[in-house]
Order: sequence, then C-alpha cells, then structure tokens
Amino acid sequence: MQNVSDFKWKKGMKVGDFVDRIGSVGFQSVELEKAARIIVKMKQSRSKIFLTFTSNMVTSGLRGLFAQAIRLGMADAIVTTVGSIEEDIMKAYGEKFPIGTFHSDDTALHEEGTNRVGNIFIKNKSYEKFEGIMQGMFKDLYKKNKRWTVSDMLKEIGLNLKDKDSILYQAAKHNVPVYCPAITDGAFGFHAFMFQQEHSDFVIDVVKDFGNILFCTSHDERKGVIALGGGVSKHHALFACLLNGGFDYAVYMTTARETSGSMSGATTEEAKSWGKINDSSDVCTVVGDVSITFPLAMAKALEELSKKKLIKGV
Amino acid sequence: MQNVSDFKWKKGMKVGDFVDRIGSVGFQSVELEKAARIIVKMKQSRSKIFLTFTSNMVTSGLRGLFAQAIRLGMADAIVTTVGSIEEDIMKAYGEKFPIGTFHSDDTALHEEGTNRVGNIFIKNKSYEKFEGIMQGMFKDLYKKNKRWTVSDMLKEIGLNLKDKDSILYQAAKHNVPVYCPAITDGAFGFHAFMFQQEHSDFVIDVVKDFGNILFCTSHDERKGVIALGGGVSKHHALFACLLNGGFDYAVYMTTARETSGSMSGATTEEAKSWGKINDSSDVCTVVGDVSITFPLAMAKALEELSKKKLIKGV
Amino acid sequence: MQNVSDFKWKKGMKVGDFVDRIGSVGFQSVELEKAARIIVKMKQSRSKIFLTFTSNMVTSGLRGLFAQAIRLGMADAIVTTVGSIEEDIMKAYGEKFPIGTFHSDDTALHEEGTNRVGNIFIKNKSYEKFEGIMQGMFKDLYKKNKRWTVSDMLKEIGLNLKDKDSILYQAAKHNVPVYCPAITDGAFGFHAFMFQQEHSDFVIDVVKDFGNILFCTSHDERKGVIALGGGVSKHHALFACLLNGGFDYAVYMTTARETSGSMSGATTEEAKSWGKINDSSDVCTVVGDVSITFPLAMAKALEELSKKKLIKGV
Amino acid sequence: MQNVSDFKWKKGMKVGDFVDRIGSVGFQSVELEKAARIIVKMKQSRSKIFLTFTSNMVTSGLRGLFAQAIRLGMADAIVTTVGSIEEDIMKAYGEKFPIGTFHSDDTALHEEGTNRVGNIFIKNKSYEKFEGIMQGMFKDLYKKNKRWTVSDMLKEIGLNLKDKDSILYQAAKHNVPVYCPAITDGAFGFHAFMFQQEHSDFVIDVVKDFGNILFCTSHDERKGVIALGGGVSKHHALFACLLNGGFDYAVYMTTARETSGSMSGATTEEAKSWGKINDSSDVCTVVGDVSITFPLAMAKALEELSKKKLIKGV
Repeated sequence: MQNVSDFKWKKGMKVGDFVDRIGSVGFQSVELEKAARIIVKMKQSRSKIFLTFTSNMVTSGLRGLFAQAIRLGMADAIVTTVGSIEEDIMKAYGEKFPIGTFHSDDTALHEEGTNRVGNIFIKNKSYEKFEGIMQGMFKDLYKKNKRWTVSDMLKEIGLNLKDKDSILYQAAKHNVPVYCPAITDGAFGFHAFMFQQEHSDFVIDVVKDFGNILFCTSHDERKGVIALGGGVSKHHALFACLLNGGFDYAVYMTTARETSGSMSGATTEEAKSWGKINDSSDVCTVVGDVSITFPLAMAKALEELSKKKLIKGV
Repeated sequence: MQNVSDFKWKKGMKVGDFVDRIGSVGFQSVELEKAARIIVKMKQSRSKIFLTFTSNMVTSGLRGLFAQAIRLGMADAIVTTVGSIEEDIMKAYGEKFPIGTFHSDDTALHEEGTNRVGNIFIKNKSYEKFEGIMQGMFKDLYKKNKRWTVSDMLKEIGLNLKDKDSILYQAAKHNVPVYCPAITDGAFGFHAFMFQQEHSDFVIDVVKDFGNILFCTSHDERKGVIALGGGVSKHHALFACLLNGGFDYAVYMTTARETSGSMSGATTEEAKSWGKINDSSDVCTVVGDVSITFPLAMAKALEELSKKKLIKGV
Repeated sequence: MQNVSDFKWKKGMKVGDFVDRIGSVGFQSVELEKAARIIVKMKQSRSKIFLTFTSNMVTSGLRGLFAQAIRLGMADAIVTTVGSIEEDIMKAYGEKFPIGTFHSDDTALHEEGTNRVGNIFIKNKSYEKFEGIMQGMFKDLYKKNKRWTVSDMLKEIGLNLKDKDSILYQAAKHNVPVYCPAITDGAFGFHAFMFQQEHSDFVIDVVKDFGNILFCTSHDERKGVIALGGGVSKHHALFACLLNGGFDYAVYMTTARETSGSMSGATTEEAKSWGKINDSSDVCTVVGDVSITFPLAMAKALEELSKKKLIKGV
Repeated sequence: MQNVSDFKWKKGMKVGDFVDRIGSVGFQSVELEKAARIIVKMKQSRSKIFLTFTSNMVTSGLRGLFAQAIRLGMADAIVTTVGSIEEDIMKAYGEKFPIGTFHSDDTALHEEGTNRVGNIFIKNKSYEKFEGIMQGMFKDLYKKNKRWTVSDMLKEIGLNLKDKDSILYQAAKHNVPVYCPAITDGAFGFHAFMFQQEHSDFVIDVVKDFGNILFCTSHDERKGVIALGGGVSKHHALFACLLNGGFDYAVYMTTARETSGSMSGATTEEAKSWGKINDSSDVCTVVGDVSITFPLAMAKALEELSKKKLIKGV
C-alpha cells in the first residue's frame, strides 16, 4: 500500500511528473492519476476505446484534444450530442467563441445577440452562418443518398471539413465512427427539418445506426470507455457495449453524483449490475470539471504511451 | 419584503400548509414555494405547459404523478428520454420495481439478473417481457404505417396501454404529445433495430418530429416549462420554444450546477441570453432531489388550483 | 422488499401521509422517509439525542423547529457554530431577517448596510444592537464568574431570553446543553475580546467544556445523532461520542459529498471505521437542502411519536 | 476578449505551460488559470496573504505544499481546524498515512484499527503515539506559561518539530501565526482536557487570540485570502479581515455550492455584501477538488513569481 506523500512544487516541473506526484496526495488527485494509468492500459491491451462527451466540451477548447486523441489512435468510436457536431463545424469554418464570465448580464447579452454557455459566448452570427453551411451540406448529402444513418452522414460531413483540429474531420479521416442518437436536438435538427420540408424523402435513419454502434465491436474484443460527463452520450456507449459483453476498462469523469439515480451520476459499480462494465474490469471515477481533469490525465497517459512507443504521429 | 419566520410543526398539518410555511424558512424551501406559485400562474394564464423529465424519474414512483399531471391538464407537451418510455410500458404491463439500496453488491446483483438504478432495482425478466411486447407493438405499428414520427408512434402505443397511471396512456387520451429525440438510446432502440432487420422500410422519422414540437405551440401563446433534471429532455423543450419566442414561465428542478457549462446545470439566466426564456419571465430553480421537491411543489400547486377551480377531475 | 409505487396527489393530503407515500417513490424520498423512521426509533429506544446544525440554519426559520424539538424532548444535546448563537439572540430581541434573493447586487447591499446569507438578509443595525446586548451580558456573566465554559455561559444567557422560539431559551429551560467549540469565530468572539480588554481575568474555558460534552453521555446509554450540515458541529458530536462507544442511530442531512475527504461529506460508513457510529447502528443520509428535508422528516416523525404518545406538550 | 482555443498535448509539456494553455479552454480551467494570476498579484502587491484550509487537506499530501508556501513567503497567516494540527504533528513524528479507497469495508477497517478519511487511512496507533507526544508537549508548555493563546501555543509547538515539511515548523520559523479557533474539536482537545484535569489553572485563551488575528493586519495593508474549502477556517479569516476593511484579493477553491446558504458555499459576491471582500477586489472561485486545483494553480503562480524573482529560496 502506497503512503500519502508531501507534494512540493519544483521549478520547471513537467506535467507528466506533476500527475505522478499528485497521485500520492489523496482524494481526487489519486483517482486522476489512476485514470491516466487505466487509459494507458486500454491502449496497451489494444482495447477498442469509446470516447463519449457532452456538447459543452466541444464549445470549450477540449475540442482540439478530442481531435488529437482520434489522430493518435486513442479513440475508436465517439458518442456525443448534437451541439458537439454543430460547434465542431462552426469552428472548422473559422468561428471564434469568446471567453466571458459565468456572471453576465444575460438580458444585455441577449440584446446584443450573444448566447452564453457557462463562461463561453457564442454569437448569433455564428448560428446564422451555420444555417447556410448546413443547407449546402444537406443538398450535397441528398444528391448521394436519400436515407442516411447518423454516423455515415457525419463521416461524409467530416471528410469535407479540412480542419486538423476538427473532431469530425479526424474521425472521418481515421475511420472512427461518430454516433449521435439525439441528432435532431439542436440547430442541426431544425435545419434538417427545413430541408426535409422541400425533400420529403430525406430521412435520417437513427434505427439503422443502432446496428452500426452494436456491430462496431464484439464480445471477443477488449473494450474501454472514457465517459466525460453523462446523459445520452454516456448511456449510449454503455448500453451498446452491454450487448457486447461489457467494458473491460472504464474511466468516468464527471461532476454528477449518484444520489438522484440519474444516468449522469450512475457509478461504475451500478454499471456492473447491468453488465455494462465487467465485474473484473479496471475502473475509476474522477469527480471534477472535465476542462481540468481530462487534459491532465490525458497529458500523463500520452507521455507514458509515447515513452512506450504505443502512439504514432507525435 | 417578507421576513424569515420560525417554522413549527403542527399536529395533523396538511401538505399545502406545510409548503406555505416553509416558504418563509429560507434557502431552497423559499424557492420551492415559489415554484408552486409559478406553476399556479402557468395554469391561471392558460399557458401551454411543457413538462420535461429524465428516465430515472419514471423508474421511480413519480410516474404516477406525471400521469396525473397530464390527466389534470397540467402538461400540454412531454419531453423525455427513452428509458421513460420503456419503463412506463413495463409498468403498464404489471412489472414491479423493488426498492433496494444505493450501496448494493453489484456483482451479486448482476449474477442474480437484477439491474440497479440508484436505490431502485429492475429485473432482467422485466426486460425480457418487454422484448416480446415491443416486437408485437412494432408489428402493429408497421401494419398501419412504414414511417412514423416518434410522437405519433408513442401516441399509438399509449392508446393501447389502458393503465390510468401510465404517462403514455394519459398523454394519448388527452392529446398530449410525447417527444423523445433520442428514441434509440435504449432497449426500445435495440428492438426497433431488430424489427427493421426484417422490415427494411420501417423508419422512425426523427427529423419530421422536430416540426411537430416546433408547431405544437406558437409565438402568440403563453408558454411555461417545468424542467425536471437536465440533458436532452430539458434542452429539447428549451430549444424548440426558443424558436417560438421563449418561455414566459420556467421552473427548473435539478441537482446539477452551472460551473461546468453543461445543459443540465444551465441556469434560467443563461437561458435568457439565448432567448429560450423571456427576459421578463417568471422563473425559479429549486436545487434538490426531484423525488422530494416535485411532489411537494405539485401538491401545493394542485391544492391552490383546486381551490380556484382551475383543475377538473380531482 | 417493498416495490416502487406510483405517487399521486390527493386533495387535502396531510404532511405525514405525504412522507409515507414518497417513501415508495425512490432515490432521496426513500431516504427521507427512512430518516423519519430512525428519528422515531431514537425516541422509542430512549436514546440520548445529539442535534447538530450550522449557523445558516438558525439564520433561517429552522430556528423555531430546533427550539420546538428541544421543548418536545427530541434533543438532549446541541452542537453548533457561533453564528447560531448570535442570530438566536438577535431574533430573541426582536430582530427580523428579510428574505431576499441569491442573485442580489451585493455592492449595493453593502452600501445600504445589508449582509447576505444565501437568500436571507441581515441588517448591520441588527449587529449593532447585538453589540450592546452582548456587552451587557458579559458584564452580568462576569459578576457571577470570571471563568466560564461555553455551555455554562450559553445556559446562563438562554435563561434570560424569554422567547419560546429561542434555541438557547428552550435549551436552558430543559437542561439541554449547547456546545459550541468555535465560540470566538464571529461577532460574539469580537465582543468577548473587547470585554476581555477591560477585564483581563475573563476567560472562556473551551478545554473544560470538552469534559462536559464527554460526560453528558456514557457507554451505557443508547445514543443517536441528527447531523444537519457538516463542519465543526457535526465533527464535535461524532468525536465526543466516539469516546463513548459510538452512536446507535444516525441521521445525516447534507448537501456535501464524500469525494473530497471532508468532514462535511464524510459518510456514515466512514464514521464506522472510526467507531463514531456503531457497526450495527441504524443509519441513513438524506442528500438535499435541510430547509426542506428536515421539517419534512421531523413533521412525519413527530406525527408518529404523537400517535404513540411518546412526546408531551404537543 | 480572449477566444476559446483548442488545447493539444505537447510532448514534455511543463506544468506552467499546461496551466497557461487550459486558461483558454473554458469553464473551470479558465477560473483556475485566473486563480494563478490573482495569487501572483497578491505577492506582487505585497499583500498580507491569509491561507485557510480544512483538516482533510493536511491528511493529504497538500501538507508539504502548505509548508513550502509558508517557506517561500506565500502565506502570512494560516487559519485551519484542529485536525490539521494533529496530523501535521503526527507526520512530523514520522507517522505514515496509507492511501486506500473510498469504497472500503469500514467495519473490517474498524476491527483492524484503521480510520478512514475519504481514500486515506490513519491507524489507531498513530493516535496512540500522538497521545504521548501531546502529554509531553502540554507539560513543557505549562512550565512556561499557564495561559496560552492558540497561536502562541502552536508557535511553541512548531519550533520543536524540526520537519521541513511541517506546517507548524515552517510557520514558527517564519513568524507566520497559525489560528485555530476550534482548537478543542479533536484529539488535541481531549488531551488538553486530560492535562487540565491535573492542572486546573491550565487555560487555552481563545478570546485573546481573537485580538491576535485582528491585529496581525490592518486597514492600511493590502490583503489577500486563499480559502481552500469552507467552514470555520474560511469564515474566521473573512470575519477577522472584515473588521480590517476587507480583502483586496480572494481566491476560493471549493466543492461546496451557494444554494444552501452555508459559509462553505458562500460566494465572493456574498462576501462583498458583508465587506469581507472589497467591492473592487480581484476575485475568483475554482470549483473542484483542492487536491488537484491548488497544486496546479500554485505551480503556475510559483513559476511566474520565480521568473519575476519575487520568491526566494527556490
């Protein structure tokens, strides 16, 4: 059993060493260092890695890290909500999101056409530009096919983005499917609806996409999940893999708690009762804001994997 | 300005009086009593009321209160996730969910075929029975139509349930649409996929359903939202009404917090920046477990509305 | 094993029946109903009951319920922080605390001499009046004795308050000791210091008061704790009883969580490792705002105890 | 206004650069980078810095960083609870605290004499050894003086510890007072009580120590506070400085939230209504586990200060 060890700052400390050192501080720092180790194991064991996240994380600068994770082979399937798709596209088209404050005058923001997501702002004009982009995309998609599964459609969109920091672009380029069961819950859905008004045979086939997530892995493969935040993204990956024998590795990073019985706060233990996670799996949960905990754990894991020559393209 | 007033228990106290009294205690009790008053105003002003909730709440006994709210005219549109649909149907077919504990031996539960949702258990056999039910339902639906929007499909299902405590049944009977954008994120999605394997022209048209939620209300109507928990359910109602001029009344009940920028924790103020909620609207947020706060606020609101003869069928 | 049962509102429902019914809803409502049952058991088993709470709860209208609990024999020892003492005294002298909002203009409040505690306001003039009261009290205390333990001093103060809703008054009248280890952490401490400047032999003997809390119960007695919130109040009761064999009954009501290793979020399980709570004890934790959960659980417990004729003076 | 920027890992990244980069990610990472900048400003402006923390943080390896902060001149006054004192002394005498898990069998731990604080263990034998140490210390203290303020007593104890990672040692050596208003709330209090049983004129004068914290700074000085966690430690620093014109800089790091009106969750805005923090002060709050956020912010601040040659002894 390891003992608590006094942390001290050292000048010029590297982030990898920092995570190493806080691994013997206590409380969530211990869990964070464990998360980094489990991510290393996922890769070493050649597991298929499911990375799930909520839209607000793509609003933030984690987008670049998600795209990098795909490029480095750290994610074999993505599950997210539609805001992620929208904002990944907006950013690929050059839109900028200013950093504001949590305590804004929201009525004033509304009047000036600024929408707030925590301490990040999105301008109405970014959404207006997005409308034009999407109508063009739907036209192109429709020419190729009338009926699309979500993941096929997102791959087609991704191939056209040409932004190396784009999740959809890197996913398309590296054959990593992006699943998004609630595809209509946002501006994307509204524009799809407007397009369908003129093209009534245009269909997004969410049912068929269930087969895609189901068959993108199998009982025989080792599987890992990095679930950032909760909701539909987390549940969809867990449910799909439940049908495939459950995950062998699981890292949850969240601020939600289990006391209300919600999926967002559901623990790795609860997941075992369902068979979503194997009884003998290697799991941990890091409680905290993903904008801090995920880059920190990932930086440590990537340093280790780089030393072990298990990631390419660094 | 009202002053804090010392709360004292009185023998035989009614729940309506209880909420009245804690309204001058302080902290969240003040917000809860305000929530009851805003719900009363929604009804008095003949607003169209959107009621949104997450699946775990239907796992719990709040299901009966949701069905009752629909029956009493307290909900004009429902938005939820697919677990709600599944468990409403299971319960309508007589399945029982035992109350367990948050601290169970989940490996043992898994071995005995019991799945845990917080402190509630669902047996595997409930899911097995559900499979048979759904395959029959999809057959019947398919006979009528090859392409269904989610809300139309759920209405058709609801009409056949014949359980007065069922959300889908009461919604169907009272022409209250049930929206569920992530319809494939659960066993329902898996069974739909299995059915589609044999009937490739079977389509669930989520895009068209966006039009249904959009046109179920209008700029001209007064609108209110009671958002229980967060995620896709909450966002879908807010986004749809943003396009209709925003809500005039909003009651949020949640355990999530705003600090991570997630939709679940997004405040009523943040919603104003988007126009999801009107700048001049009447809003409140009650932080706490919905299994306590919603029945309490609702009991108070229904007592008031009953006195004012604004609800029927009591 | 009990099953989840659909909750429905009934016109004129009593609060006791309400708690009964939400006891089979799920999640925290189940824990709340259990809390009520454990409180009943504490009394039935003639346990010595420790009631602990933080200052903000006395800022709120829970003050009246605490005083009532003492009067009805539901608390045999009180542990709290010094803000509770200050505000109990202010209120006993007629000061009123307006209910405001969590989202105030705090700079404006500061300018007008109003201090905010969540959504409750305390005026500077209440503190000014308090200064005069305390200087008088210290003079009277000093005449009787130069060296006081905290609990003896608070009893002396309580006897002079003559407000039936005062915690100190009811405690003094019913010989219920009030412990407050951090007695100097507030205006009370400042005024004590000012008084001591003129009377250097005036001493508050916190060390001796440790003996008082230690010997107010024993290994032989059955013991229960109702810990509202965390911090020093909770810890002091748990630590003192650890030395007396630990608690047989424990109800925690809190919003804190265990993930940071703080005392406020420490679980009843963690307490067992220390022997603060017996391994075989009857425990539960209700997560939620105490301004809602405590009156609700207490109302139910008092109804039951009243039926069983176990409380007097109702 | 700065824009969100895509974060990407770079091989061999330094922790200072890491914090720089997450400063444009969004949500709490933005607040964390701001915290580092405010800490730098505190030092640059030659403010008197109050560092407050709860006991569990000294149970963890943050102890070493607190001692280092004192040594580097980053803390001019310490406020904490008594568990910090106890565990700082135990560790100075060589006791080791094993890292365990949050999900332990606490009954088994109890049987083997192990006490749990989150995922850290403290052995009964550490407490037994502590008893001997304290009885010796009280004897030595008593020889010098019968009546001690807390901060004078802790300085005397610190001078004898000779452990460079000890908070009390570094504080004593650098003339940094350690305030602890709830000095009897723990084993220290129990042993003080046992000693007083034999030496009835032994007094810990908490009232006089209020004067010490009050006069350790003044209206004229610039003042900053780094408040880690909540409770009495946080309140005591804020209250003492309220009487001195309030803080000019404030960094809160916490997991508590404002919704229950507790001191632990009280915001920097609420503090302004009291005058605890100046209306024009530079403030931020980082929500998250201090075992991650404090070393991260501090590492960044110390790198900056080291570049600016504002800290010595690096």
